[in-house]
Amino acid sequence: METQIRVTFHPQGRAVSVLRGTTILEAAARAGLVIETPCGGAGTCGKCRIRIMQGCGVPTATDERVFSPAELKDGWRLACRTVIVREMVITVPQASLFGDEHQILATSDSGAAPEILPGIRKIYVTLAPPTLTDDAPDLLRLEQAIGPFKATLRLIRHVSATLRANGFAGTAVLDDHTLIDFEAGDTHARCFGVAFDIGTTTLVGTLLNLCTGEKLATVSRMNPQVSFGDDVLSRIHQAASCGSGLDEMRLALTNEVAAMIDALGAGAAISRENIYAAAFAGNTTMEHILCGLNPAQLGETPFVPMHARGLLVPAGELGIPIHHGARAYLFPIIGGFVGGDTVAGMLATRIDRHEETALLVDIGTNGELVLSHHGVFYAASTAAGPAFEGARIACGMRGTHGAIEKVVFDDDVRLEVIGNVAPTGLCGSGLIDLIAELLACGIITPEGQMLAPDELPASLPPALARRVESDEDGTVRFVLSEAGAGCGSSPVALTQRDVREVQLGSGAVRAGIILLMRQAGLDVSDLGIVLIAGGFGNFIRRSSAQRIGLLPGGIAHTRIRYVGNVSLAGAQAALLSGDARRLGEDLARRITHVELSTMEGFQDVFADAMVFPRSY
Amino acid sequence: METQIRVTFHPQGRAVSVLRGTTILEAAARAGLVIETPCGGAGTCGKCRIRIMQGCGVPTATDERVFSPAELKDGWRLACRTVIVREMVITVPQASLFGDEHQILATSDSGAAPEILPGIRKIYVTLAPPTLTDDAPDLLRLEQAIGPFKATLRLIRHVSATLRANGFAGTAVLDDHTLIDFEAGDTHARCFGVAFDIGTTTLVGTLLNLCTGEKLATVSRMNPQVSFGDDVLSRIHQAASCGSGLDEMRLALTNEVAAMIDALGAGAAISRENIYAAAFAGNTTMEHILCGLNPAQLGETPFVPMHARGLLVPAGELGIPIHHGARAYLFPIIGGFVGGDTVAGMLATRIDRHEETALLVDIGTNGELVLSHHGVFYAASTAAGPAFEGARIACGMRGTHGAIEKVVFDDDVRLEVIGNVAPTGLCGSGLIDLIAELLACGIITPEGQMLAPDELPASLPPALARRVESDEDGTVRFVLSEAGAGCGSSPVALTQRDVREVQLGSGAVRAGIILLMRQAGLDVSDLGIVLIAGGFGNFIRRSSAQRIGLLPGGIAHTRIRYVGNVSLAGAQAALLSGDARRLGEDLARRITHVELSTMEGFQDVFADAMVFPRSY
Repeated sequence: METQIRVTFHPQGRAVSVLRGTTILEAAARAGLVIETPCGGAGTCGKCRIRIMQGCGVPTATDERVFSPAELKDGWRLACRTVIVREMVITVPQASLFGDEHQILATSDSGAAPEILPGIRKIYVTLAPPTLTDDAPDLLRLEQAIGPFKATLRLIRHVSATLRANGFAGTAVLDDHTLIDFEAGDTHARCFGVAFDIGTTTLVGTLLNLCTGEKLATVSRMNPQVSFGDDVLSRIHQAASCGSGLDEMRLALTNEVAAMIDALGAGAAISRENIYAAAFAGNTTMEHILCGLNPAQLGETPFVPMHARGLLVPAGELGIPIHHGARAYLFPIIGGFVGGDTVAGMLATRIDRHEETALLVDIGTNGELVLSHHGVFYAASTAAGPAFEGARIACGMRGTHGAIEKVVFDDDVRLEVIGNVAPTGLCGSGLIDLIAELLACGIITPEGQMLAPDELPASLPPALARRVESDEDGTVRFVLSEAGAGCGSSPVALTQRDVREVQLGSGAVRAGIILLMRQAGLDVSDLGIVLIAGGFGNFIRRSSAQRIGLLPGGIAHTRIRYVGNVSLAGAQAALLSGDARRLGEDLARRITHVELSTMEGFQDVFADAMVFPRSY
Repeated sequence: METQIRVTFHPQGRAVSVLRGTTILEAAARAGLVIETPCGGAGTCGKCRIRIMQGCGVPTATDERVFSPAELKDGWRLACRTVIVREMVITVPQASLFGDEHQILATSDSGAAPEILPGIRKIYVTLAPPTLTDDAPDLLRLEQAIGPFKATLRLIRHVSATLRANGFAGTAVLDDHTLIDFEAGDTHARCFGVAFDIGTTTLVGTLLNLCTGEKLATVSRMNPQVSFGDDVLSRIHQAASCGSGLDEMRLALTNEVAAMIDALGAGAAISRENIYAAAFAGNTTMEHILCGLNPAQLGETPFVPMHARGLLVPAGELGIPIHHGARAYLFPIIGGFVGGDTVAGMLATRIDRHEETALLVDIGTNGELVLSHHGVFYAASTAAGPAFEGARIACGMRGTHGAIEKVVFDDDVRLEVIGNVAPTGLCGSGLIDLIAELLACGIITPEGQMLAPDELPASLPPALARRVESDEDGTVRFVLSEAGAGCGSSPVALTQRDVREVQLGSGAVRAGIILLMRQAGLDVSDLGIVLIAGGFGNFIRRSSAQRIGLLPGGIAHTRIRYVGNVSLAGAQAALLSGDARRLGEDLARRITHVELSTMEGFQDVFADAMVFPRSY
């Protein structure tokens, strides 16, 4: 394992450790900053401008073409061309940022603060106490200060009591035009919200300051529903077949979300009662279960969800323990297997803004696909399986501390481990890298067979060949790390069975893309841009993704862009802006849902895609 | 007691029994039909046109001036001029109707059906079941049939289950754009609502068909809160001083309302679950108690209500047992003692439409006053006491079966009793008549003293003089009916104490009017029209109201109009039309609340008004 190099990004204040030779573009992505690269990182568009404040080396030829000598002297470089060889401090201008929340929330290209217009507003008021000549009712007095609002009877009582106990002052909490609380004293700065990506395998939540938009904390956990089965069909079956199944799964989920909310707030000492809004993006089954809607009908043809539009429901009704008057937003649903997470992804990437034909590939336990072509949207889903999230893989794990997130072969194996520690397992991006490298060097055949030690190509470097081991029963595995520190008492290794899981998963995604393109009457060569999203770890290498056949052949490398967890980014955007929410609703309305399994040629395309690409 | 004559009105299908000599105008009012009389029934404006289909007599000279010979032959007459001497069947054209719900709900003067646009709509739908090629979600399918709507999670579950159990057909129940139920089968015609006037002393409720606007039943009851005190101040005191006082009063009220709803529905076999909306108009204290808002602050200067705007709250939260998804509307509040009943009255009378200066006098336990002058509104309240509703009067009762509602003196007493039965007591209109007649013939002095038998004027007809009785302790009373059938085992009689109650009540109203006019910089001679409202019985005679000094002197008889229970009429209008509700909200916003007790000269004006007018 090599020593990693620390890179810090300003003004975002994020730092990551990366392997020597990583580009600044890639490092920025790992830090959650997606930099604008219309050319796909080919060094031709000149958009990915950053400034190296410390650790700057000599400019590349491309840099010299793009920047003036003065700029070069000041540290300006292209992020896609600059390779990291020493510690760096880098400034990323707002104008260079792409996608994620920045695209949605930016008011302008001037680098000004992002636009924050959440439904929740807190307003501190000091009202004149009533007199005989000014006998306006209490709520009318408040209305004169904060504008018209609705309130429940409980709250009307509470406002009058609080006003009278506090000299007619206090802080009104509004959710759009509904008063949801009235707090003693000036509490207007304590105004928070939580956004969640509710995946079949993984839950990710963030805590946001609703006044500033600042992201205060992020927590990621395994979805505890995996104990009921690791894909949506098994969850649907559980809910449909067992009387209490739905409720058990719902409670497992909401209890975990509750624990995550406490974990999110713990660092900044933010209590549940100061969290006034929540947004959830999940697939159709996850959103149904979260809402206590039995997903049984999603398990039978024609796989019809109960509802479609986004929902704003009392958080308490979902069992989400935040402010007692808070509402939770759930993203609109498109079809039985294309859910709110896909809409959130469309919102986060603003796929509607791409003039060229764009494809969003969001890889979770299901792979969701969105094709945008001249203002028309098509969506479909394909069963990728949970392998890319670390499940069903012998040494699989989520992209957390100890996960191998990058694998490079030279004469031996080079690993990048999150947290720069001894590896515990493989997360999605590491898994993709590893399979790609094993295919490239011939240890795995295109049919997905891992060769036994005695079948290996003669040209293979000896260090690599030694890592291929065969059990007594003939089962072959590829060992990445020593025993002891790894996956329990065993070393971190990839098994033949793991290869099959990846083969099925990447094949399903590729087949889905081919079929969706066909449905739209397009060819992969028509694609102007391909956005790959998902929570694989941190960063997916395009070359690896293409090598294992996650994407069809024929897509130029420069057209592929990794955009991270766009489902979570969309949920955050919806939390921070009513406009963003309305835009998401509008996108959901405009999309055409394509059921791939009913298409002619479905079986053939899927069968073909079960084989890894022969070359790349 | 005289035999009464039956009069039937078409197309409204209402019938009343009246004393010989009653005008058609008066009889129509008793039947709940307020006929247009801009001239005040003077026979000069020619607006009160009706057609006598059966029982027509010779036309008056006025009729001959207004109508053509052919019209006269067809039975056309002026309602204000025609005296009833035999049974009649009368047609009342829509164009001749004034005020009440008609004014608000009429689409045009053409006599077309009134406009019914309630928030509640029921729509029967038959949806295409989903297929593989049409896999739209259940609620989207419903949305395509009925337009966009919101729904709770509970209802989303219910819709899916109901659709699937009933071949994708059923009846959607919408409250504005919120789905509140989805019923199996075609139930769209079973759509009802209830409107209530919640008075301090009297509760009146009606059941309306929300499809047609038809009034199906009316029920009137004593407010059971009278056991906690017969005016609002005693109720406020009870709530403020006793921990459980508010809740006890609230439950007494809601239990009675629940019983009234059952009584309303019993006749037409309409169940609680088919009543989807409720509207309540009450004074500030009554609305606060109904909502469980402690009215304590209404009992302390500066008498400030908790809220002002109209409220739409879940009916279940109020304890009103109608459809589980129904909302109840409560009229907006103007001030501590000018409440939603006053706004409802403004709405029902469309006081904003009067070009001339108009005064609405709504007499209940409090007398509420609204002055409309060139688009500016002033409102005030004055403590009339419950006498006009039958409380605090020895033989007082509400205007129900057995109540004396009209009293005329000639050589003896002539009575009109509701239901044409032996009299049980006196309701408000009968009480006003009686005091007026006793003042006119000198049995009561302007100071309110009832003369003893030996003090009576010599000119008094002997039959009347014999009705004045004196107890052993010198207490004088005026006897209206024989003992046995009357007020318990005693005869129906008026006591000296009763006279004092009426004196205080009518004086308070008169003083209030004088002060409010003064506040607006006007004189009673500026009044173009005076609308008298209240639930006195059925009809109040203007001459009697003026004789006892309920109104200041100097208002021409022709300018006074009795408009009935406008609080209830307003509640009905709000139930049937969202536009009416919004108009009421708008009127409430525009009104200036006048606190009479803080005005200069308040004490003097009230003291002066405690004496009955010396002449009329």
